[in-house]
Amino acid sequence: MPKTRLDTARIRAARRTIDPVFLDTPLYRCEPLESALGCAVSIKLETANPVRSFKARGTELVASQLADDGQHAVVCASAGNLGQALAWSGRGRGLDVTVVATRRATVAKLDRIRALGARLELVDGDHELARDRAAAIAQQRGIRLLEDSLDIETCDGAGTIGLELVDTAPSFDAVLIALGGGALATGVGHVLKEQAPHVEVLCVQPLGAPAMTRSWHQRAVVTTESINTIADGVAGRRPIPAVLDDLLLVADDAILVQETSIIAGMRMLLDQAGLVAEPSAALGVAAILEDPDRFAGRHVAIIVCGSNVDVAAYHRWIRSAHVRRA
Amino acid sequence: MPKTRLDTARIRAARRTIDPVFLDTPLYRCEPLESALGCAVSIKLETANPVRSFKARGTELVASQLADDGQHAVVCASAGNLGQALAWSGRGRGLDVTVVATRRATVAKLDRIRALGARLELVDGDHELARDRAAAIAQQRGIRLLEDSLDIETCDGAGTIGLELVDTAPSFDAVLIALGGGALATGVGHVLKEQAPHVEVLCVQPLGAPAMTRSWHQRAVVTTESINTIADGVAGRRPIPAVLDDLLLVADDAILVQETSIIAGMRMLLDQAGLVAEPSAALGVAAILEDPDRFAGRHVAIIVCGSNVDVAAYHRWIRSAHVRRA
Repeated sequence: MPKTRLDTARIRAARRTIDPVFLDTPLYRCEPLESALGCAVSIKLETANPVRSFKARGTELVASQLADDGQHAVVCASAGNLGQALAWSGRGRGLDVTVVATRRATVAKLDRIRALGARLELVDGDHELARDRAAAIAQQRGIRLLEDSLDIETCDGAGTIGLELVDTAPSFDAVLIALGGGALATGVGHVLKEQAPHVEVLCVQPLGAPAMTRSWHQRAVVTTESINTIADGVAGRRPIPAVLDDLLLVADDAILVQETSIIAGMRMLLDQAGLVAEPSAALGVAAILEDPDRFAGRHVAIIVCGSNVDVAAYHRWIRSAHVRRA
Repeated sequence: MPKTRLDTARIRAARRTIDPVFLDTPLYRCEPLESALGCAVSIKLETANPVRSFKARGTELVASQLADDGQHAVVCASAGNLGQALAWSGRGRGLDVTVVATRRATVAKLDRIRALGARLELVDGDHELARDRAAAIAQQRGIRLLEDSLDIETCDGAGTIGLELVDTAPSFDAVLIALGGGALATGVGHVLKEQAPHVEVLCVQPLGAPAMTRSWHQRAVVTTESINTIADGVAGRRPIPAVLDDLLLVADDAILVQETSIIAGMRMLLDQAGLVAEPSAALGVAAILEDPDRFAGRHVAIIVCGSNVDVAAYHRWIRSAHVRRA
């Protein structure tokens, strides 16, 4: 059993706190994708809910805890999905939610954060700057700072996906998980390594935002200078040491993929599966497209973790995608 | 309680026969759609499963019954979704499945029927001709003919959606249901009228395929000469009397919508909800777009009943849609 910061019993208990609208999401074989990719593919769909990503599994835990403790405010940095989820979870519990994001963020995500009633503060620069600013706000106002992937609730929330995979599914050989800060990978990975250790836990990150993947391979935090990817949801430069430690215990590999593969993956999910995926949610398909031999004949689970896109950019990506024949 | 051919206890029991991958589908508020449509909107999503439509809820019942009875073959006419679902359900139970469809059918649907191992027979002409041909095959080979909407399993299967709506949901004012042969409308409608009689049951059909709607308004079967709609899933010309009788008992209204509204509805579901909907699955949104005052401030449930589209046609529709500003 991996000695991570996570605990499967606690994750199972967390299911009782999370609004059921975010739990027990669809998990199904998608044969048209299988023909196109040359391996058996099960989709775990995290986009058919009020915030169109898996992030609310974690923010439900945070917001519930804050409300129970009589606290009234919380702040987080977010590329957009965590912020939406925290705004949703906080609104239902009367919390004052502040989200710090970069001005370069996906506009649709920022619009939704505002629409959900959160205060939105924009910073120039990238996500790491937003993290710094959120920390400063928390200190200044004396309120809870929610740090994605570091704060255990975000990992536990993701872990409930792992439980649904092992409780429902027959037998995968591998799970492909989008890798950014690491909450999704360590949460799902912990449960899989404990409950279904034969399943390979494979993390996928864009070549243009490789900090956590490089850190995993070097077994030490590697920071990068810049970000160059459309996959905004996984675009960090400064891995968190404690999260890397967990990831080293649960991941079997960390893979980097090219932007063209991410776009081809989005197009394939739309055409073959009828699913809108944001770039981060197409990383798994991208990994198979880049190395089909590695997956040939195996059964792979793909977590489609978000669908929040700017409509114009999405249509542009889809039109530009190189379409492979099934 | 409506004295239809349906029975809520039997529908509840049917849940035990249907593969869980088709049950307990996502049901959630979609606030971006709400802003765009001017009413509260809950989505019941029937596309995140192996056949991308609700039809397998019914074919699971049929195939299971046939297998229990030691029968080996079944034939149906289908615009494509019933055929896919029957092929899927039959394959898992070793049944020899024949699907009769029109050559004009959505190519992606025909491809999937073949890929699922069913025999596919194509007829020139429309869906009514396919129905005649399927009946002839059944008689000739002495095998079960599955008739959509007439055969009670197809209505019971749809009825399980109704149960999930009333068991899970807080309080809708109305449910918008795609109307074709009538299985979906009578199945969902029966359960709603019995369990939540305050909810308006509103059926929506394209102006280009209005036979059942006209029949409902005239309280007698009206057939039409031709079909002119992209909504292939609901394109019938000869309503079945027994289904009309049930529909008269459970529907509060039947509404006709224009093709441009269906296309605008598909585009809106893609842009605001991140969902791929086939034309039949956009009928509910089309109805709200055409008569927003009727729904203003109310809470409406929309059943997104299928997402099987030809990719090229879908992209063409989406590009051509008149986009209204939210």
